[in-house]
Amino acid sequence: MKLGVIGCGYWGPNLVRNFNAVDGCTVVGVSDLRPERLNYIGSLYPNIKTLTTDCNELLHHKTIDAIVIATPVSTHFSLGMEALEHGKHVLMEKPMTATSEQAEVLIETAERSKLVLMVDHTFIYTGAIRKIKEIITSGELGELYYFDSVRVNLGMFQHDVNVIWDLAPHDVYIMDHLLARTPRAISATGVAHFDTDVENIAYIAVQYDDNLIGHIHVNWLAPVKVRKTLICGSKKMIVYDDVEPSEKVKVYNKGVEYLQNRDEVYDILVQYRTGDMTAPHIDLTEALHRIAREFVDAVAEDRPALTDGTAGYRTVRMLEAANTSLKAGGKVIKL
Amino acid sequence: MKLGVIGCGYWGPNLVRNFNAVDGCTVVGVSDLRPERLNYIGSLYPNIKTLTTDCNELLHHKTIDAIVIATPVSTHFSLGMEALEHGKHVLMEKPMTATSEQAEVLIETAERSKLVLMVDHTFIYTGAIRKIKEIITSGELGELYYFDSVRVNLGMFQHDVNVIWDLAPHDVYIMDHLLARTPRAISATGVAHFDTDVENIAYIAVQYDDNLIGHIHVNWLAPVKVRKTLICGSKKMIVYDDVEPSEKVKVYNKGVEYLQNRDEVYDILVQYRTGDMTAPHIDLTEALHRIAREFVDAVAEDRPALTDGTAGYRTVRMLEAANTSLKAGGKVIKL
Amino acid sequence: MKLGVIGCGYWGPNLVRNFNAVDGCTVVGVSDLRPERLNYIGSLYPNIKTLTTDCNELLHHKTIDAIVIATPVSTHFSLGMEALEHGKHVLMEKPMTATSEQAEVLIETAERSKLVLMVDHTFIYTGAIRKIKEIITSGELGELYYFDSVRVNLGMFQHDVNVIWDLAPHDVYIMDHLLARTPRAISATGVAHFDTDVENIAYIAVQYDDNLIGHIHVNWLAPVKVRKTLICGSKKMIVYDDVEPSEKVKVYNKGVEYLQNRDEVYDILVQYRTGDMTAPHIDLTEALHRIAREFVDAVAEDRPALTDGTAGYRTVRMLEAANTSLKAGGKVIKL
Amino acid sequence: MKLGVIGCGYWGPNLVRNFNAVDGCTVVGVSDLRPERLNYIGSLYPNIKTLTTDCNELLHHKTIDAIVIATPVSTHFSLGMEALEHGKHVLMEKPMTATSEQAEVLIETAERSKLVLMVDHTFIYTGAIRKIKEIITSGELGELYYFDSVRVNLGMFQHDVNVIWDLAPHDVYIMDHLLARTPRAISATGVAHFDTDVENIAYIAVQYDDNLIGHIHVNWLAPVKVRKTLICGSKKMIVYDDVEPSEKVKVYNKGVEYLQNRDEVYDILVQYRTGDMTAPHIDLTEALHRIAREFVDAVAEDRPALTDGTAGYRTVRMLEAANTSLKAGGKVIKL
Repeated sequence: MKLGVIGCGYWGPNLVRNFNAVDGCTVVGVSDLRPERLNYIGSLYPNIKTLTTDCNELLHHKTIDAIVIATPVSTHFSLGMEALEHGKHVLMEKPMTATSEQAEVLIETAERSKLVLMVDHTFIYTGAIRKIKEIITSGELGELYYFDSVRVNLGMFQHDVNVIWDLAPHDVYIMDHLLARTPRAISATGVAHFDTDVENIAYIAVQYDDNLIGHIHVNWLAPVKVRKTLICGSKKMIVYDDVEPSEKVKVYNKGVEYLQNRDEVYDILVQYRTGDMTAPHIDLTEALHRIAREFVDAVAEDRPALTDGTAGYRTVRMLEAANTSLKAGGKVIKL
Repeated sequence: MKLGVIGCGYWGPNLVRNFNAVDGCTVVGVSDLRPERLNYIGSLYPNIKTLTTDCNELLHHKTIDAIVIATPVSTHFSLGMEALEHGKHVLMEKPMTATSEQAEVLIETAERSKLVLMVDHTFIYTGAIRKIKEIITSGELGELYYFDSVRVNLGMFQHDVNVIWDLAPHDVYIMDHLLARTPRAISATGVAHFDTDVENIAYIAVQYDDNLIGHIHVNWLAPVKVRKTLICGSKKMIVYDDVEPSEKVKVYNKGVEYLQNRDEVYDILVQYRTGDMTAPHIDLTEALHRIAREFVDAVAEDRPALTDGTAGYRTVRMLEAANTSLKAGGKVIKL
Repeated sequence: MKLGVIGCGYWGPNLVRNFNAVDGCTVVGVSDLRPERLNYIGSLYPNIKTLTTDCNELLHHKTIDAIVIATPVSTHFSLGMEALEHGKHVLMEKPMTATSEQAEVLIETAERSKLVLMVDHTFIYTGAIRKIKEIITSGELGELYYFDSVRVNLGMFQHDVNVIWDLAPHDVYIMDHLLARTPRAISATGVAHFDTDVENIAYIAVQYDDNLIGHIHVNWLAPVKVRKTLICGSKKMIVYDDVEPSEKVKVYNKGVEYLQNRDEVYDILVQYRTGDMTAPHIDLTEALHRIAREFVDAVAEDRPALTDGTAGYRTVRMLEAANTSLKAGGKVIKL
Repeated sequence: MKLGVIGCGYWGPNLVRNFNAVDGCTVVGVSDLRPERLNYIGSLYPNIKTLTTDCNELLHHKTIDAIVIATPVSTHFSLGMEALEHGKHVLMEKPMTATSEQAEVLIETAERSKLVLMVDHTFIYTGAIRKIKEIITSGELGELYYFDSVRVNLGMFQHDVNVIWDLAPHDVYIMDHLLARTPRAISATGVAHFDTDVENIAYIAVQYDDNLIGHIHVNWLAPVKVRKTLICGSKKMIVYDDVEPSEKVKVYNKGVEYLQNRDEVYDILVQYRTGDMTAPHIDLTEALHRIAREFVDAVAEDRPALTDGTAGYRTVRMLEAANTSLKAGGKVIKL
């Protein structure tokens, strides 16, 4: 598989390095509007033939099979369409598109052309989230009660997208992947603290059936860095702290049983259960290496990738609804 | 000042001990429906003359000047009215009443009778909150941006009130006291995870003017105990962690300056500022001792207490609105 | 069993409370030189008949079966001897005596009189140390490599005993209990930072056979409170952090294998192993309750207590040697 | 200034990158025994002319002014002598040499030849240690009481040098730099837990005049990574935690005053003082960048570098003494 990478900012060199490390895959071209980024990538990888400021050279390239799109989100849709229409498989950075409608068109186009359309939902491929997914899938947590995530620190303030589009994609796609449920409604509150309409703090509440609730706090203006998620079930509870250098995932064998005596309405018996806490060993393979391999494998095996266009669409759909609610002062948006 | 205490559960003996330690104040009577609680208090304080299961003995007692009401919230209003009508000053446990209307009636009654009506908003009297209030009042934080509080742990599940009425009063009265602003709107989301209508997890968003926002997460079903509040201003930011044994308050000299060039709309310059962090020394005097003294002093000086009926009313009003929003699926409630 | 308690400082009321809670045991007398302490204990426990400033009233008391000695260490030996010679079973606070010779005499006397002699090595009875002992005994850690303990904070400075006699007893008896091995040599370094000969910081190194090593850092002059112990074996490693409110014990399934190729001396292969970390559930029963029960049971069953005189002697012997080394500038003392 | 780098392992590329970034300095040659390391450095820095497996090409190179020696410690002396004898300035990795005698010879040789001899004591150039040095120099801590450092984690086990020569150099040169005092005696205890004579755990105690004491715990076999130093003075105390991502340095305004009444020997009054804790802002400039600049500046200004040969000698002297004590079972070594 021959690969072209469009966009070579902070993430670009990592993409090139990891795709080059996958058997059967070679990065043959990179484009970026900034010549200095191309020079840099050229110095690191002298074997890359095509280094160009014109992405069309890659999109129209005859021997390129697949395109990675690592540009600002506003360009994702048109570049993705162009790539698909030229018969290239596509891996897109997150969030997939600026609107859910765009995501739907891309999915349809990829399906029609029998091409792989994948989204770089990086955290899904980390050892930590893979372990949590494994635990949830095994049923160890019991019935799921809530997902609560906090992702705050100081900066980086964006000019064009608010904190929901910048930070919340991570939490939304992690939540969507782990819960594997369709939300019923979303509401969001937030404000822009500076003289712009770009919100720098937001709270997103997501309602699911069966009293399952999701909540996300994203914030560019906090004095400390927090990346903490609680996932609580009827049998066990997980704390996932991504700031911890080790022991990122802790599984608490704790719970509550709530026994209601049907005859006497006030006679409710709450029983607390406390057992061991376990921090399972986490595989430290770089997530991006797994993403590169998944993309190459999905193409080779002609199957959808783990984080395919539909996963990308669901994430964009939730972000879009959260943003709509935010702009409407916190109104609940039915999905 | 001669004092009677109605209700002698977990908190009762602490109230008696602290009031007895204030010069010019003596606890002369205690009532509780449970004789074993009265025996216990009698063994600790043999000088207390009146130990009774009938609170009327205290309410109608001739020499008692003031009554402390430490019973379940559903009884606060009627006991408070009775005490005021018998010319007693009143200190009530939090939350002040079950409805804001009840709080208004109590305030009016106390004003008409020229009696002190105070609410036991305990945290306001801790060294940590006193220090934070001092910092905010000094203007050191600059313009206030947000107040974000998380109060979660495992238990204690209540039968009759949900987590908003049980845990959120603390965060609401702390926020109200520190921000000293009137909220514009409140919304809340939450669920009951057991077969009851008593919510055990809730998120409350509070909107103020000038883009100030408050947010509270209360939860009885978390594997770890968290009591953490972020208070962020334009110049400095505070982290208040009540679980920390020392260094509960940390003041970060950090911030963002957001300079927008009016001519060129995209030319926004964000400047980050990072300076020292300071954990100021916190006075460790027991909060309840300060409360006892404040109540005695307010009576002696014929002035409103720091946490007077109005503070109690404002807290109940916000809790009430949060609860209304919660029951309406997250609808924004204007105040 | 009828009990007398000599010495009623900080720890005394806890002793009385816990012994009174054990079936078949009654505290019938308490002595202390300070009348106000006796008044206090009398107000809490009106049923205690004998409250006296003269400990002989308890030592010569006809119906008292056992004596608890909770006085300064300099008085332990003479009070203990007096009690044993009057046929009373004895529980002594730690450290057992001021010299190992005194401990030996007490042990002999108790054995000759067939009386129970027990030492209050409190931590041995906590859920945390009981769990660690259970893990070590099961062989889960493999071969033991080292025991490293740090017990530092600010104060409380003592006038008469140095930090080794004040803080290190805890670490020494915990180490002795957990390792269950006889040390070969001890050395200690430390200094007195004020114009006294009372050392406020000390480091104690303990050498055992088979390359097992113990080390203890005790310090009255540290800005933060640390109570942390590492216990490392060939298969697993334990971190015991007594300052943590929960998860005090963490068991790491980590290790190193060190394979030396005998033919080629430089060809050493080190293999690292990293698995799960587990924080086992810890029983929260108060240690002092277990101590009271163990003393009563040992008397009833006519058997040595878990922390008998011999355990007390071993601890005093090590403290004595550490102190000798300290005063000799760090000289290694063979045991 | 034209530079040659001998040895291009893990640290080599960082050295090249930082020296290239200093004005007036160019790396013109790199040598390493492993051709693949040379290829790697060649791909990163195509402008480096001389890439060779023979270090003599650099040592005898006509236009090279200075040599960086980043090889195993056993080769430092001979390579350093060769470089100095060919008139090159020298920067050596830590520890400077395998014996203090070698260090003395190098210092003499450099002095005779009027060449700069500097040692890469990296941490001295970090923002954290620079800040601590500034605080100590200002007198803010008062009289110095102790320096206590713990540097433990799992691995990396070495074949040829023990944990004292591998990890303790950092703590020894930091202690030497910060205290700026000459130690009086050193003792060390440690063991090798595997079938070698390479100790993997060691405790080093360093005695200074005026009751100042230093202590270092280094350990390759710990389940958790700790890099924590306490530096205590009569007025303030510092905790330096290098594992913390931010707030590495905390200054506690805490202390003890110990007032002895001369008339009554037992009448000692201990007063505790507790004030604010401050975590000063730390400059995040890469230490290696400062080292490169210091070396270039010292050569240009014909002056000793901050961490000159003498600093290197003092560190080696202490390590040597610690090792002698260790091998003699903990015997105190006078310096």
